[in-house]
Amino acid sequence: MDIIDIINKKRLKQELTREEISFAVNGYIDGTVKDYQMSSLLMAIVLNGMTDRESIDLTDIMLHSGDVIDLSNIDGIIVDKHSTGGVGDKVTLVFAPLLASLGIKIAKMSGRGLGHTGGTIDKLESIEGFNTKLSQEEFIKQVNDINIAIVSQSGNLVPADKKIYALRDVTGTVESIPLIASSIMSKKIASGADIIIIDLKVGSGALIKNLEDAHELSRIMVKIGEIYKKTVICMLTNMDQPLGYAVGNSLEVQESINTLKGDGPSDLLEVVISLCSIIVGAVKKISNEEAKNLLFKQLNNGEAYNKFVEFVNRQGGDINKIKISDKVIYIKSEVSGYINRIDALKIGEIVKKLGAGRNTLDDEIDYGVGIVLSKKVGDYVEKDEELLKVYMSDKDVSLNEILDCYKIDKQLDKPIKTILDIVN
Amino acid sequence: MDIIDIINKKRLKQELTREEISFAVNGYIDGTVKDYQMSSLLMAIVLNGMTDRESIDLTDIMLHSGDVIDLSNIDGIIVDKHSTGGVGDKVTLVFAPLLASLGIKIAKMSGRGLGHTGGTIDKLESIEGFNTKLSQEEFIKQVNDINIAIVSQSGNLVPADKKIYALRDVTGTVESIPLIASSIMSKKIASGADIIIIDLKVGSGALIKNLEDAHELSRIMVKIGEIYKKTVICMLTNMDQPLGYAVGNSLEVQESINTLKGDGPSDLLEVVISLCSIIVGAVKKISNEEAKNLLFKQLNNGEAYNKFVEFVNRQGGDINKIKISDKVIYIKSEVSGYINRIDALKIGEIVKKLGAGRNTLDDEIDYGVGIVLSKKVGDYVEKDEELLKVYMSDKDVSLNEILDCYKIDKQLDKPIKTILDIVN
Repeated sequence: MDIIDIINKKRLKQELTREEISFAVNGYIDGTVKDYQMSSLLMAIVLNGMTDRESIDLTDIMLHSGDVIDLSNIDGIIVDKHSTGGVGDKVTLVFAPLLASLGIKIAKMSGRGLGHTGGTIDKLESIEGFNTKLSQEEFIKQVNDINIAIVSQSGNLVPADKKIYALRDVTGTVESIPLIASSIMSKKIASGADIIIIDLKVGSGALIKNLEDAHELSRIMVKIGEIYKKTVICMLTNMDQPLGYAVGNSLEVQESINTLKGDGPSDLLEVVISLCSIIVGAVKKISNEEAKNLLFKQLNNGEAYNKFVEFVNRQGGDINKIKISDKVIYIKSEVSGYINRIDALKIGEIVKKLGAGRNTLDDEIDYGVGIVLSKKVGDYVEKDEELLKVYMSDKDVSLNEILDCYKIDKQLDKPIKTILDIVN
Repeated sequence: MDIIDIINKKRLKQELTREEISFAVNGYIDGTVKDYQMSSLLMAIVLNGMTDRESIDLTDIMLHSGDVIDLSNIDGIIVDKHSTGGVGDKVTLVFAPLLASLGIKIAKMSGRGLGHTGGTIDKLESIEGFNTKLSQEEFIKQVNDINIAIVSQSGNLVPADKKIYALRDVTGTVESIPLIASSIMSKKIASGADIIIIDLKVGSGALIKNLEDAHELSRIMVKIGEIYKKTVICMLTNMDQPLGYAVGNSLEVQESINTLKGDGPSDLLEVVISLCSIIVGAVKKISNEEAKNLLFKQLNNGEAYNKFVEFVNRQGGDINKIKISDKVIYIKSEVSGYINRIDALKIGEIVKKLGAGRNTLDDEIDYGVGIVLSKKVGDYVEKDEELLKVYMSDKDVSLNEILDCYKIDKQLDKPIKTILDIVN
């Protein structure tokens, strides 16, 4: 077999056999297929696509390139979740203890933030003492004991994806439905859960630009899940504005705690309750309406919050020690009007500049900085009324850059939906 | 400017600016653009194409990546020729002295053979003493003195093409009309001639598979030529069987000498006369018919051959010292019938195996080996009648492999045309 023949075949839009895909992926890992050959093949895949059969084979080959986590020692239904990357996206921090408080098992491996999007591991590490590195035995025991554990991703989980993703990132080959599907699904299946929730961000600032592509990506991910007897639920969400009010590691943990105590922002609550009600309905065999009622009960009676505290304590964290910067700048509106847009991408970039994010995985981050919005899209703001608060440390940001995130008009635009669709 | 943005732009089928193409090509030469990024961009170009403007800019940027030969010190019309690579293709060896004998200037840089196709420089070096390395001054003086010089390509002629072509070769990105056009035209324009003849091989074994692509490639090459005030003539020729009877360096020189003496194979003569008559007609302002008569006169009165001898002597070669292997195997036909096919690609591969070709540019070659066909496509062969002669040295080839090149049937197929079209 010859990699050039394989590239030529995909260039001519022909279907690759499982053996050919394996030759390319495994050859790339062991170095016999060069990076310039892999990038050429990847671009041919981006432009000529892959059949479902090819996407399924690619996922399976990547999945078996490293460790596959065995969670069979955990009793009951195990849930995992993946987000394609949002701003202010603290869904996992609420979703996970809420479900765990109802006896559903959460065994989740998370990543760190990169670029303008945050990562759950960084958020948890903003709690003093929180340990995100558990052995596989500790991880499984904790899920069995208290229904929930969230750890950073194992070093040898789908190394093929790690290597291929790094190449895609620098060769303009990120935006491809089969490549995105196999990247997400290989990692999630290797992680071992039974139910996989995918929070798929859709919009100009996201990997997936339109609903049509989002539906196609969801379809193939659900299909891949079926092969491994996994339930895949894709939630298509809009990322036109940050989720909730807080953006920044400690600030988002604080907002998650408020939400778990029954006092959360409506868009965050909508996402969390929609997702959880599907799972609770299916696992407990009750109606969606009954599931929602049960979930609100857990938020209001303190059970969800108590589960979060138990989880944080178990992983060594002190819930009373969350460092939030005390250098707070209040920014007021220069005009009166309806807020028609708060650019999530730009807010994410500003918070990264404040020190909350990193450009490379080696960068140190500042947990206490960030932004808390005072108003959201659809709200009316008076001139000189507070628009947002900036929690700063030693790094500066431009005021104009912050104000540029906002579109404030005399007229109110059509309201934006947070949840665009749910595919399962 | 960022190479990833440039790749993404071409991935989305948008037109690149001259500055973006320059950033990619020059960045690749200086190493700031990585090979895996260039190959990704090349695949995007292969699949999404280039506008004429982009192809013209790419050619110009490559052209100026190295030396541009100044032939303004040569009086009169200067002709150069390029072949996309054939088997038994000795057109240059006949074409060049024939035109030179009529006062037309031939200032040609040639390459060495690689893979299954031969190279003019190797063929000339099979003449003992022939020197293919002249200084630029010697080169120009010789063309002014005797109308003809053929030298090996300067080291620094279009280094961008050299580097990009090597990458295309190993990344499945060879077959692209804009990339082929800019590769050929940048080198030919940098070589400085006024009239550029392109012998474009078309067919299953060639770079260009069909007439439609060949016409498109010719169109853009003629258009690029116009920008530099060069006359580009593309001859579309079929490579279903070797050109002439001889394949192998010395054997082809011998057949060229016979042709220059008026005793050439009809297909080779057809190609040479068709090409030369266009040039002679244009330069001498005579009709195509008059030009053809003049050319046949030069072959029959010894002028063309004398010019070849003068040219060989001037570059140090001894026309009487052409080493041809004396280990000759006569291969007879096992069946009677019409020869409907002699596979040029396979014949080229066999002659390479005999030692006449090379896999890498460092390989030593054996000038004396090769194949001389006794019959061509369309001929009838009796059982036990001679089909071909194999001139061997120490390397072996399989008899079955040779016989597999032939398709001999009871019925004669539709005759194949040698010249498919001429575009200018």
